[in-house]
Amino acid sequence: MTKNQRIDAAASLDHSSLADQCSILRATDIFGDGWTILILRELFWGQTRYDQIAAHTGMASNILAARLKKLVENDVIEKSVVESDARRFDYTLTQKGRELFPVLMTVMAWGDRWSSGDAGPLVQLRHTVCGKRTKAGLVCTSCAAPLAPETLRTNFAPAYKQSI
Amino acid sequence: MTKNQRIDAAASLDHSSLADQCSILRATDIFGDGWTILILRELFWGQTRYDQIAAHTGMASNILAARLKKLVENDVIEKSVVESDARRFDYTLTQKGRELFPVLMTVMAWGDRWSSGDAGPLVQLRHTVCGKRTKAGLVCTSCAAPLAPETLRTNFAPAYKQSI
Repeated sequence: MTKNQRIDAAASLDHSSLADQCSILRATDIFGDGWTILILRELFWGQTRYDQIAAHTGMASNILAARLKKLVENDVIEKSVVESDARRFDYTLTQKGRELFPVLMTVMAWGDRWSSGDAGPLVQLRHTVCGKRTKAGLVCTSCAAPLAPETLRTNFAPAYKQSI
Repeated sequence: MTKNQRIDAAASLDHSSLADQCSILRATDIFGDGWTILILRELFWGQTRYDQIAAHTGMASNILAARLKKLVENDVIEKSVVESDARRFDYTLTQKGRELFPVLMTVMAWGDRWSSGDAGPLVQLRHTVCGKRTKAGLVCTSCAAPLAPETLRTNFAPAYKQSI
């Protein structure tokens, strides 16, 4: 394929259709902003109340409310009335939300290494199984050997091939 | 701490300062949008040219150019002149960029499971070490046992404690 043919192919793409098919675009649309990941961190660390999350993240109320609403709409979290006080709500992760744990861990690890503030990482993690400081390492789910870019072969689905 | 004390603490926070310190906010500001993650995927799969990336992702030129510029400014990728054609450029990942591999893998895995289009995942991955279909599993970098939210203990740095 020559350069011009490639450019023509790109120009004739149905961009909105590819975006609809692309799981990366759909996924980051749900959780891709930093405030949303901060909320998820709080929920993973066991906070469930609006005011706890607000206090721990320092988020303005309008930002927090909008992000919680979007996460509920996307089935990432569930909202339920607090039994002892019907005016207040608990927020908990759904299965879909709990499976964002690897995303949270890898974003935290990269952020701590490459974009911490002057004070260094705000949160340190210790693994209760071994008792040591921990971060996330990546392994193949089939053979448990470490995963690296050079050990991956990619197969493109027909829908993807039609678009290039 | 009572509910009201927590709300007061949150209200008195210097939000901009916490955002500056928070590696999650700083990190997602760099790569948190889906188009940027698509560009990273192309670079990890070995594409280096502007027109290749445009054709494979279906991105409009103004979106692609802006994202590449931001990634260069943040030292995630490097831009270099193609030797055989001084009017064209190669884009390659820096060390900082290569270390986004775990983020890409975990976002892809979650997206494929929870937000694929009707046609299913567009890209399938095979591990050349074992030859099988693969996705990313998470292990502790200290003891290599699987990492799960309930096996983590969190320690908060002084800068974090001062803010709550």
